[in-house]
This record gives sequence, structure tokens and C-alpha cells, in this order.
Amino acid sequence: MANEKITSRDKDFAKWYTDVVMAAHLASYTSVKGCIAIEPNGYAIWEKMVSILDKKFKELGHVNVQMPLLIPENLLKKESELVEGFAPEVAWVTEGGKNKLEERHCIRPTSETMFSDYYKDHVKSYKDLPMLYNQWCNVLRWEKETRPFLRSREFLWQEGHTLHSTSAEAEAEVKQMMDVYKWFHHEILAIPSITGVKTEKEKFAGAEYTLTNEALMYNGVSLQSGTSHYFGQKFSRAYDIKFQNKENKLEYAYQTSWGTTTRMIGGLIMVHSDDKGLVLPPRIAPRQVVIIPIGKSERVFELANKFNKELNDNDITSFIDLSEKSPGFKFAEAEVNGIPVRLEIGERDLENNVITFARRDTGEKISKNLDIDIVSFTKELLLDIQNSLYNRALERRNKLTFVAHNLDDMKNILNSQPGFIKADWCGNVECENKIKEIRGCKSRCITEDELIDGKCVCCGKPAKHNVIWGLQY
Amino acid sequence: MANEKITSRDKDFAKWYTDVVMAAHLASYTSVKGCIAIEPNGYAIWEKMVSILDKKFKELGHVNVQMPLLIPENLLKKESELVEGFAPEVAWVTEGGKNKLEERHCIRPTSETMFSDYYKDHVKSYKDLPMLYNQWCNVLRWEKETRPFLRSREFLWQEGHTLHSTSAEAEAEVKQMMDVYKWFHHEILAIPSITGVKTEKEKFAGAEYTLTNEALMYNGVSLQSGTSHYFGQKFSRAYDIKFQNKENKLEYAYQTSWGTTTRMIGGLIMVHSDDKGLVLPPRIAPRQVVIIPIGKSERVFELANKFNKELNDNDITSFIDLSEKSPGFKFAEAEVNGIPVRLEIGERDLENNVITFARRDTGEKISKNLDIDIVSFTKELLLDIQNSLYNRALERRNKLTFVAHNLDDMKNILNSQPGFIKADWCGNVECENKIKEIRGCKSRCITEDELIDGKCVCCGKPAKHNVIWGLQY
Repeated sequence: MANEKITSRDKDFAKWYTDVVMAAHLASYTSVKGCIAIEPNGYAIWEKMVSILDKKFKELGHVNVQMPLLIPENLLKKESELVEGFAPEVAWVTEGGKNKLEERHCIRPTSETMFSDYYKDHVKSYKDLPMLYNQWCNVLRWEKETRPFLRSREFLWQEGHTLHSTSAEAEAEVKQMMDVYKWFHHEILAIPSITGVKTEKEKFAGAEYTLTNEALMYNGVSLQSGTSHYFGQKFSRAYDIKFQNKENKLEYAYQTSWGTTTRMIGGLIMVHSDDKGLVLPPRIAPRQVVIIPIGKSERVFELANKFNKELNDNDITSFIDLSEKSPGFKFAEAEVNGIPVRLEIGERDLENNVITFARRDTGEKISKNLDIDIVSFTKELLLDIQNSLYNRALERRNKLTFVAHNLDDMKNILNSQPGFIKADWCGNVECENKIKEIRGCKSRCITEDELIDGKCVCCGKPAKHNVIWGLQY
Repeated sequence: MANEKITSRDKDFAKWYTDVVMAAHLASYTSVKGCIAIEPNGYAIWEKMVSILDKKFKELGHVNVQMPLLIPENLLKKESELVEGFAPEVAWVTEGGKNKLEERHCIRPTSETMFSDYYKDHVKSYKDLPMLYNQWCNVLRWEKETRPFLRSREFLWQEGHTLHSTSAEAEAEVKQMMDVYKWFHHEILAIPSITGVKTEKEKFAGAEYTLTNEALMYNGVSLQSGTSHYFGQKFSRAYDIKFQNKENKLEYAYQTSWGTTTRMIGGLIMVHSDDKGLVLPPRIAPRQVVIIPIGKSERVFELANKFNKELNDNDITSFIDLSEKSPGFKFAEAEVNGIPVRLEIGERDLENNVITFARRDTGEKISKNLDIDIVSFTKELLLDIQNSLYNRALERRNKLTFVAHNLDDMKNILNSQPGFIKADWCGNVECENKIKEIRGCKSRCITEDELIDGKCVCCGKPAKHNVIWGLQY
């Protein structure tokens, strides 16, 4: 069976994760250390993510562009915090066309530098603003420990970069795009994420502040899954991006950036999947229905074709598995690949005018009479699967959300069953560092919730923020 | 006016080209030598190219994947012809994460290496074949002289890579994909290209043979615009890609690759555009109709909105220019940006119940009564523009297609008005090299046409092929 080799999720979560990635043919290792090949099943999920997000970005007025992959060292160095943040993890091109280069070029770890260099030459007046750009591309960060989709030296992402004439407009953009990420996680990926502000220690290098979207995996470990940064005038000062404002005065422009990556595929796996393989919410599943004919009679194939056409004509992505494998093997393959609905059309069932649906999320089998309205029934079934997956994930998240009043609480939680840990914090990085000593626990985000008991979970002094803490990928 | 600064095409073609690229905001230079920023107007054309080609590839059974950007040196070296062909023009990563790497990695100039390495581990039986993969990505070649879109160190492309169990099937794939490129040029880009086989000298490094799609620019220079390669078992032997065939014997698999790039945007410009800026065939234009309201009356805007909605509801991409510029400025901007149809809705015209269409290709203005069926009229107009552009390009190509019987003919043609030059060839590379001495003239492709006079244009000995020659970008 296709899913025989998957380790139990509750027994060894890390191994289970890799097993699902491999068994569902989402990605495979390559001869390039720390870099994966994204296989057809994995890339199809990314394509669906891209198409949904891209449409939303464009509806909000953004346009796509493409900046160079390479960044000359002198250009990268102009914004000191960015360099310090990224210098330890970039790859350098030092030779080109058989010659040693006069100046090293790094492969982009992110493109604030290139966009800033572009704005500098292209913005003159407030009439040119806002500039609402996005780019779909690959970036490279020389990570030491890598895992498919979650942390890879090269990964695919979108990076939005916008420039504005006022701070208010730029800050509204930062918030708007975080709302898009939250919407995408909740409505499309069925992942009940939490959003908030990163602490100073955890914010993006060079940002005034960073908003983050944090998802909780099945094992209680957090996954940062989308960030949105407000830069104020920091990059504008470093790269000299000025515009003539309405009062005819030169002013530095206000900047943002925001991004999501192929790591969301990892998130999908670790929130929804099970010991049989991949489980995909219907809205992100590249193929929503697989029709499996059982038997060789003409009627079976006639009906398979008829239903397949009806579903595809009505915006449900369906296909017929016509391969030469046994029905049992096809069932297992559909399961491991995470196809939300399986429709069995069997010779013997047809004698009773019956067809059978099977849900991937629950395994439930539903027999229906042949005269069913296949389109509306399948639509409802897919919607129910989408909602059930969300609710199941929400239940799990709530179950794994804890409150800590002191460091002992924190240690107990982290050493038994990690999760989102809500705790008050005084705002000092010293306490943040001390908490990190417990299994590497980090602040995930500052929430807007009220304080729990008003005392810092670490030092006991008056608290400033209600913060969510946790282990992370 | 937006198009005032464009040099005359007939006066200085090279300068005209760059002027159009800049004036239409397709791309701009960057601080990275030899690399451009593809701006929103240019990227929108690429997105449309991608969507049309991707759909076609998928209809033919291909699936998308993503292989790593970096290639370890030892892996690249396995196929000697490929290394020799590409080694002079690759960029090398030698440092990563502050450390010198034990082994250099090049940035992919093309990905036969990575696909071969992937196949090796993933193909076991003839049942796993064919593997029909494609990848949309960036590649890098360390060119010395660069020009926006035509030759850039980094460019975007698609590279199809397929693996087959028989040579016949692989060769059929090579031909099929060349037919797709030809279809795309003729039907979508309105470019009457010519396809044929490359000579041994001009074929892809490592290929058994290469099919090519060659377009002729307005100035008579050729642009190679899409190639499809048959590798036979060459890479399979180098990378050890074996499969169990139907006779239960191990056999090396048969391989192909095929690609098109952002340079097609350069081809579009150099075939169709004029002294007023960009001209785009409607089928590739990201925006097909611009509606320009003239005057401030409510009726003008009501009608603009009504027509805009009707067009967009019927698969015609239309927008209303609501910017604060003068109508004259908007006209010029629509022209320079290559919007195929301009619809003027003017207060005064409306008194006579008239609206005015203007064709970008001919400049012709057409007044129509308000009760016109706007959708069917615009569809016909767009189709007529599409066909006219193709016919105009075909006429130009025919006008610039010459026949040479000897080297003097060749010299005369190349020194007065270059173009496609048809001439017989004996098949010896010595003659090819001698012809190249004339202004760098190269064989474009071997045609399937009959011989012209049976004698090699260079040495006069018996000819083997009717070949098209020309200058190239």
C-alpha cells in the first residue's frame, strides 16, 4: 500500500512529517545540500496558493515586478541592520564567466535592497505614490539545519514591497496585508492562526515593527507563517528615496514589505495530515475529487465520465483514476495524496443504483442513490470537509493553548506538552532571553488581549504586554 | 507627450528599441551589471505569456516542478559537452554563511543536470515513464554584452524536461513542443516565425539535435525564440538513468528539453512596435481596451462604466483612464504603452450619439453610433488588429527574405539590408565558419525546402541542405 511506510504521528512527529512529504511525493532531497526538489504534487499546491494570493493582491491594487537575483555587496551594506541580520546567512557569488568579480554579489535573501535602489530612481513626486509592488521569486538563506518546506536554503515566496507618501497609509498597508494572510490561513488553508506584533528582539532586521501570523502545529510547535513589516523612513534614509510632497517639499518616503513562502505547505501538513498521509482542505487541494471505477463494465465508465464532466464543469476539480492498479491500491494512493473526496463507482453497487463517497478527513463512507444531484451534494460535502478541518484544528489549538503565571509554569508546559503559552511580560529583552533558555522558547507575538495578572512571567515586575510564547520551527 | 522622446526606428534601430522599452516602462536598468528590473508593464506581458503557455503545456500532460537554483560543480561536470558549452558563462557561489564552500556551486544556466540527477533516483520501470516536467524559473548566464530582454545575465524562462522509454516517443515530444512554440508565435504573438533544425555547430551543448524557432525583426536581424532539444541517451549515460523496459531489461532512458524566455518580449517589440512606442497584438496585450472619458458630465462617466463592464464581462480586458491628465496626454500614454484599442467617450460626440474607437496599429479612428453592439464590434476589431499585425509582419518577413547563390550575394545582402538569407550548404563547418566572417552571419536553421541550385553557397561543392542564414541577436 502507498501509505504503509508512514510512521505514526504520535510516535515520532518529525519522522512522520518527512514520511508524509515523501509518500505524497511533495518534495524529495537533492544532491544540493539543504535544497529540495519540489515535485508535481507539492508544486501543484504552491501553484494554487499563488493563484489565490495573487488574485487577492491584485484586487488590492498591487502589480507584479521582477528585481535581480544578485545584490552587489556595497548596495546591501547601505542599511546596517539589514546587513547585520542577513550577512551570516547569505551565499556569495565571487566568480562569473571564468573571472574573479571585482565585487562580491550575494544571492537575495530578501529584496528590500533592490526595491529601495529602484524606488530611488523612479519616485519624484507624491503623484508617483503609492507604489504597490509584489514579486514571486526564489530566495536563498544559508541555513545550517534544513527540513523540507519548513527551512530550506532556497525557497519560493512572494515579497510585497510598497512605498507611500504618509506613514498612516504605509501602516494601513502593513495591517491590510497581515489581514490578507490571516484570511488566507483561516478561509483557504483552514488554519486558525493568531496574529500580533513581534517583539523588538524578534522583529525583521531593519523594520520599525513586524506583524506576524503564527500557526500552531499538531505537536504544539509554532510556525511563523507570513510577516508584514513597517519600515517607516529607515530604508528611505539609507537609500535616499525622496519625493516632492504636496507642500512642494522633499520628504523621505514610507516603506513596507510582507511575505509568505512555500513553508505554508509544511504548515498544511503539520496541522491537518494524519497517519494515512496528506490531508488537504478542499479550497487548497489541486484535485478535489478522485473517481475510482470498480469493475470493467461499460456502465461504470460511462457514469465515471458523466460525473467527472459535471463536476469539472461546475468548478470542482475532479479526475478519474484510470491507472492499471487495483481499486485498493488506488484508495490508498488517493488517501496518501490527500484528495478530499473519493467517489467509488462499482459494478455491484450499480445493481442497487448506488454510488459511494468517502471523505478523506474522517474516512466516513456515504452511499447515495444514482439520481443524486452530484454537483450540489459534492459542493456541500467539500464545504463540510473544509469547515470540519478548520474546527478540528481550532479545537486542537485551543486544547494546546496554555496560561503561565511564572517560569515554573512555563517549564512544566514546555517539558510536557508544548503549545501556545500566554503569559504577561515586562518588555525587557533580559526576560525574553531567560525564557529562551527553556528549550529555546521564543515570544511568538504580542497580543492585544488584556494582561493576565499584570506581572511579568519571568521577573515578576509590572507587565506591559500579554504575549504568546512557544517553541518554533 | 509620453512618446516624444522615442528615436525614429528607421534612423537608429538600437536606440529606438531601448527608448520603447523605457518609455513603455517595460524594464529599467539596475545597479546590478547586466541585469534588469522587469517593471509592471513588462511583467504583465510575461504573466500573460506564462498563463497561455502553461495552460497549453498542461493540456499536453506536463506538470510543473521546481529544482534547486544551485548546481554542485561535480554534478555539472558529468556531461562533458554541457560543461564545455556553459562553463565560460556561469556564475559561481564560493562562499555561504560566512564560510568558504568545500565545493563551488554554479547558479543554473539551464537545468538538465538537476533533472538528470532527479530522474536517476526516481525512475525504475517503463511504468514510471514518460515523465513530463516543466519548470518556470530564473537562470543566469554571465554575458558580456547585454540588452534589456534580448540578452540579460539573469532572465526568466520555462524549461521543459521530459524522459521517455523510447526514442520515437522522445523525438515526437521534441517536435510537438516546437509546434507549440510555433503556434504561440503565429497565433498569439502574431510573429510569422520559421522553424527547423540547428546545424551541428549551432545546436545546444549536449544535444543530439536542436529544433529552433526563428523570428525576423523589423530591421532584418534574426531572433532565436524557443528551442527544443533531443538528447537521446546522452545524459542518461552520463547520469546513469536506467529503467526496466517491457522486456525486463535495463535500458538508458531517452530525454528532451525545450524552452522559451522573456526575450520573447524583445521580439514582440522589434516585430510590431513603431515610433509612437509599443504595439501589442491583442491576444498578448495585458490590457486590450482603454476607455478615455473626455469632459466631466455625468453621462460620460455613466457610459464609460457601462461599456467597461460589458467588455470585461465578455472576456475583453478593459479599463477606464481616470487619472488627472489631459485627454491628449492619455492618448499618447495609451499609444506608448501599446493598448490595442482606445475608446473615446466625449461630451460633444455624445450630443450626436457618437463614440470613437482608435486602433493602435494603424492609428485609424472609427466613429460609431451609441446603439452599437459594443462587445461584438470590439471583438471583431481586436481580431482584425491581431490579423493585420500578423500579415504586416509576414509581408515584412517576405520582403526581407533573400536568396543567395554565392558568397558575393551573401555579402551584398548583409551589407545593404540583412534578412533571412536562403542558401544551399554542403554541410561542412568550414563553410559555416567562413560565412560567419561576413558580419557574424550564422546559420539560423536547416529547412525542409528543396535545394535552390544544389551547390554550396560558400565552396560550390554539392549541397546537402537548404539553410536560412542571418545576423542574430
